[in-house]
Amino acid sequence: MDTAAASSPNAVLRPGIAERLWGASRIEFSLRGYHGARVQGIARRAGCNVALLYRHWSSKKALYLDVLRSVYQGIAREVVALMEQGRGAPAVVGAYLDANMRDPVGAQILIREFLDGGPFLSQLVAAEPTLVEPVRRAARAIASTDGASEVLRPGLDATLAVLSIGGLAALIASAHEASRPFFDEPIPTEAWRRHLYDLLLYGVLACPAQVGGPLPP
Amino acid sequence: MDTAAASSPNAVLRPGIAERLWGASRIEFSLRGYHGARVQGIARRAGCNVALLYRHWSSKKALYLDVLRSVYQGIAREVVALMEQGRGAPAVVGAYLDANMRDPVGAQILIREFLDGGPFLSQLVAAEPTLVEPVRRAARAIASTDGASEVLRPGLDATLAVLSIGGLAALIASAHEASRPFFDEPIPTEAWRRHLYDLLLYGVLACPAQVGGPLPP
Repeated sequence: MDTAAASSPNAVLRPGIAERLWGASRIEFSLRGYHGARVQGIARRAGCNVALLYRHWSSKKALYLDVLRSVYQGIAREVVALMEQGRGAPAVVGAYLDANMRDPVGAQILIREFLDGGPFLSQLVAAEPTLVEPVRRAARAIASTDGASEVLRPGLDATLAVLSIGGLAALIASAHEASRPFFDEPIPTEAWRRHLYDLLLYGVLACPAQVGGPLPP
Repeated sequence: MDTAAASSPNAVLRPGIAERLWGASRIEFSLRGYHGARVQGIARRAGCNVALLYRHWSSKKALYLDVLRSVYQGIAREVVALMEQGRGAPAVVGAYLDANMRDPVGAQILIREFLDGGPFLSQLVAAEPTLVEPVRRAARAIASTDGASEVLRPGLDATLAVLSIGGLAALIASAHEASRPFFDEPIPTEAWRRHLYDLLLYGVLACPAQVGGPLPP
């Protein structure tokens, strides 16, 4: 990756050390959050020493900001791509559920950031205001009646709706196994997805449109 | 089994310090989760030394289990009490929102436990199976049509619905400030509550009943 890494014989013999550090960072931050994560823990997970990590990132904070930005952008891009395959609220709800369920590690990093009050996400947005654009697009899409048979429930705030949908999708994607004590049998991820899709879609649509026909799959 | 009495803040320790240790534990676990919390951090927040804490709890795990059980029971009791003031889905949704919003610190402890996969909640439930009873009661109440004009949406699983309602309520109660970058002005807690009440209630009710009249406040 760079000349510094090449000076370490071990690194040369192990291609992809940067990738392993990256993956290890995602796991550590998802399990522990920013405050609980330890640089030593990340290096151990990646099977390298801390000095090697510090050649790529100057501090835990710098590494976390990179990981958080990548997770946020990755899920947001996936949401936008999936959303554009359909229209209106059904497309937005399905996109948030699938984007988060495809990256449960990333979803958990986001939820832990939200629980901390979102300080680093705020910092990223302040430096790069276009980061909020995917949420704005989802809010416009969910409110769009263009060619769709579904109509948004009157009085619903589209941005609050999008953040609720995204929050619940990320929470269940990363934490649905915690529901185990309340059921005799484990609930498959697909059953959670169907349940949330219906719950959220009925939650945002006006009734007459729903009564008019079956919901899209 | 009632360990709560023995572990209640004023059971053994001199009044004042006991409450401070208990409150400090709640804060530390809510901000850091089980893995990130440190006994030294709790003692520092309480303004006492670690030895005093260890006089009452043998380990961080013992303390966490007491705090988690107390939070879970406290919110569950509040949910049941609020739920019994009304009927059907409106009462259940309102009860979960209010119980979590009245104890955002407790709500955050629960969410962090869920993100960890719920290992300690599972342990508590295994030792004391009646802990799941409030969720069962809420599931029966939400599905109840007894005297209520609202009818649950056909096909909805009442337990999945209750866990989704509880999860979103706890998440927003403890993390809604993280939505700040997406709005020009802060969203008051009461506006979040109204939004979630409508979203979740429309999400679980069948349409014809909703069309028939205005939703309860």
